[in-house]
Amino acid sequence: MLTLHHLEYSQSFRILWLLEELGAEYDLIVYQRDCKSSLAPDSLKTLSPLGTAPVITDGEIVMAESNAIIDYLLDQYPESDLRPVVGDLDRTQYLFWLHTSQGTMMTFMTMDTVFQAVAKRVPWLIRGLIKEVFKQVTLRLIKPRLQKLLQRAELDLGNKPWFGGKKLSAADIAMSYAMESAKYRGYITEEYPHCHSWFKRMHESPSFVSAKKKDGKESMVLPL
Amino acid sequence: MLTLHHLEYSQSFRILWLLEELGAEYDLIVYQRDCKSSLAPDSLKTLSPLGTAPVITDGEIVMAESNAIIDYLLDQYPESDLRPVVGDLDRTQYLFWLHTSQGTMMTFMTMDTVFQAVAKRVPWLIRGLIKEVFKQVTLRLIKPRLQKLLQRAELDLGNKPWFGGKKLSAADIAMSYAMESAKYRGYITEEYPHCHSWFKRMHESPSFVSAKKKDGKESMVLPL
Repeated sequence: MLTLHHLEYSQSFRILWLLEELGAEYDLIVYQRDCKSSLAPDSLKTLSPLGTAPVITDGEIVMAESNAIIDYLLDQYPESDLRPVVGDLDRTQYLFWLHTSQGTMMTFMTMDTVFQAVAKRVPWLIRGLIKEVFKQVTLRLIKPRLQKLLQRAELDLGNKPWFGGKKLSAADIAMSYAMESAKYRGYITEEYPHCHSWFKRMHESPSFVSAKKKDGKESMVLPL
Repeated sequence: MLTLHHLEYSQSFRILWLLEELGAEYDLIVYQRDCKSSLAPDSLKTLSPLGTAPVITDGEIVMAESNAIIDYLLDQYPESDLRPVVGDLDRTQYLFWLHTSQGTMMTFMTMDTVFQAVAKRVPWLIRGLIKEVFKQVTLRLIKPRLQKLLQRAELDLGNKPWFGGKKLSAADIAMSYAMESAKYRGYITEEYPHCHSWFKRMHESPSFVSAKKKDGKESMVLPL
């Protein structure tokens, strides 16, 4: 039996959403973060090949890495239209956003998370200085690149309603966590109306609603 | 005509290697990094949707993001066995490493690069302190996770010769840049003999050799 090992407030929400959208049969095990460190519990760290969420188990297979899990699950549902097939006009845009979600956008978000975690942990005597250095790195390095990416998202979502083109696809599911993180951190301002419309469409999608119900949290990302 | 816009010492070497392995017909335009800042020239930044390398142009299509380009090109060569098909026993391992290359491993390498670039640029009065903070972050956060990933690579490459299983695949091409970066930074020690054998196999692969010849550089990654 397929089992999703879901860590609260984490990237694994996407797999929960995907399973709901596919109408899959699966077991769901929810793991709580440590209330002090916010890290995943050891039981999940030990299970996962990389010590991270999401993880799925399926018979003898133990698989980590969000987009690998997405492709693995889509392989099992060839009738699903969540992955535009070769030759489909939406295929190129789909591939771009599917891979950009983890290859570029989550890298920025992870860096942002690391900076905040480090700034919290350094001795208070140097905290102000470290925060200032990280602020400059964010302003000069992360923000301009993220803006370029969001402008591209705004353009594409203005032309077609979803990241993968005319229909909801796995590219939207892949992008959801990075987009929610970017919104939570104030990067998706009112300059991006098409991105905000996309959030609305996503939040209203029936499979998203039922994944939210199973997740039971207000937010997809960990509140700071 | 398909054109690869290749930035020297960058992730775009992988696309050059893929095109050679596919025996594709393509134009190659090589861009030099700025000798002071080491950044890509404006001509490439303007062309790329994200301001990054690699970029390919194909008729009206302009595409960035390494793994998106890899999937896009593989779509055009259905007879190639560089992407194990659904049902192939190697498919799961292939998907894991293809996505892990950018989704996890390159995130660590990018963070490492950013730390080094920042440490170089801060005023010398605080340079020692900043270097120490980054060193601690690397030791506590990046290194343990990277080791877990490399141990998994070592296990998989001990069982089968390539990241995608029994044959050279796009997973090897995707992993090549992150692995070369990790090796260059001293992370791939002699504790990983199967990883070193993989490097040897990769460097001896005829398509890799001819990509190297077209690239003309000693190293895939930018020497520090």
